[in-house]
Amino acid sequence: MPIITIEGPPIGVEKKRELARRLTKVAEDIYGIKHIIVLIRENKPENVASSGELICDKKSKRSE
Amino acid sequence: MPIITIEGPPIGVEKKRELARRLTKVAEDIYGIKHIIVLIRENKPENVASSGELICDKKSKRSE
Amino acid sequence: MPIITIEGPPIGVEKKRELARRLTKVAEDIYGIKHIIVLIRENKPENVASSGELICDKKSKRSE
Amino acid sequence: MPIITIEGPPIGVEKKRELARRLTKVAEDIYGIKHIIVLIRENKPENVASSGELICDKKSKRSE
Amino acid sequence: MPIITIEGPPIGVEKKRELARRLTKVAEDIYGIKHIIVLIRENKPENVASSGELICDKKSKRSE
Amino acid sequence: MPIITIEGPPIGVEKKRELARRLTKVAEDIYGIKHIIVLIRENKPENVASSGELICDKKSKRSE
Repeated sequence: MPIITIEGPPIGVEKKRELARRLTKVAEDIYGIKHIIVLIRENKPENVASSGELICDKKSKRSE
Repeated sequence: MPIITIEGPPIGVEKKRELARRLTKVAEDIYGIKHIIVLIRENKPENVASSGELICDKKSKRSE
Repeated sequence: MPIITIEGPPIGVEKKRELARRLTKVAEDIYGIKHIIVLIRENKPENVASSGELICDKKSKRSE
Repeated sequence: MPIITIEGPPIGVEKKRELARRLTKVAEDIYGIKHIIVLIRENKPENVASSGELICDKKSKRSE
Repeated sequence: MPIITIEGPPIGVEKKRELARRLTKVAEDIYGIKHIIVLIRENKPENVASSGELICDKKSKRSE
Repeated sequence: MPIITIEGPPIGVEKKRELARRLTKVAEDIYGIKHIIVLIRENKPENVASSGELICDKKSKRSE
């Protein structure tokens, strides 16, 4: 019944499959509980900021 | 001011209307507080896993 | 597998029992899915604000 | 490392930029920590309710 | 900058250390991003329910 | 009705008061909506990790 939520950039379904499988394995080992739930949240670069700057703005700078 | 967040699969607006109305009624009864907020989150089956397997993969297995 | 999180003030275990039972019933009805999870979060009045004012400050004003 | 999540209606990227910059400034001042993360969540009016009524229904009433 | 939140029962600091280290490794591998943040939330058995029943009530039944 | 949740280290009530007031002001300005809710979450250093290491472990290293 532990619940893992992971916030990150958009990824393909193959990566989601591996992410869910491996995060679940870790939680099962540590808690000794089956029935782990994983929620994957995909955030657009314009909806996340670090140090006050949107990720979409960091990217456009870097590619200049 | 209590806040209810519900994570589930996508549903139609008629179901959302009933969901919000009924969850709010329960919270008002228990807390004795008006002004309940409800947030409905709709998750794609490829963004949720239980027991290490994505929901979208469980579904395709079941329909084989 | 739907997950309900409810943020509210501290309450007793009897109320939690009723809250979990009734919120679960609503979600089962709407989604047609068993295995609902409910997380109850209890927030101290100094950790919640509405309209810019902490709940603990609203209370002390009201009782003056 | 403090994390600010803000749930609101959809807004344009220019407003997101200002929101992230200003929320970060507040958190840096209060905590005295750099490296603030901001997550902006945009909710459709049919996914949010207050006092048991979806926001999309309140709007259509008001405009009648 | 991905953020992992894990909701589970209370655990000791040694388990938290291993949990954080291993969840981070998984996220780094999948996203190819360093700077993963992990938030561990410990929930009392009276604040979590599955299928409408508080975890604290399931436990007391099982030990009868 | 926008909701701001802020995850950070424990702080005193005076700082919470200023945090709530200032975050609310920013959200009111950007969204043009009153009735902002702020939730402050205080996390113990053993419940947060960055780059795979618990904050409580970073601190003890730094003070050596």
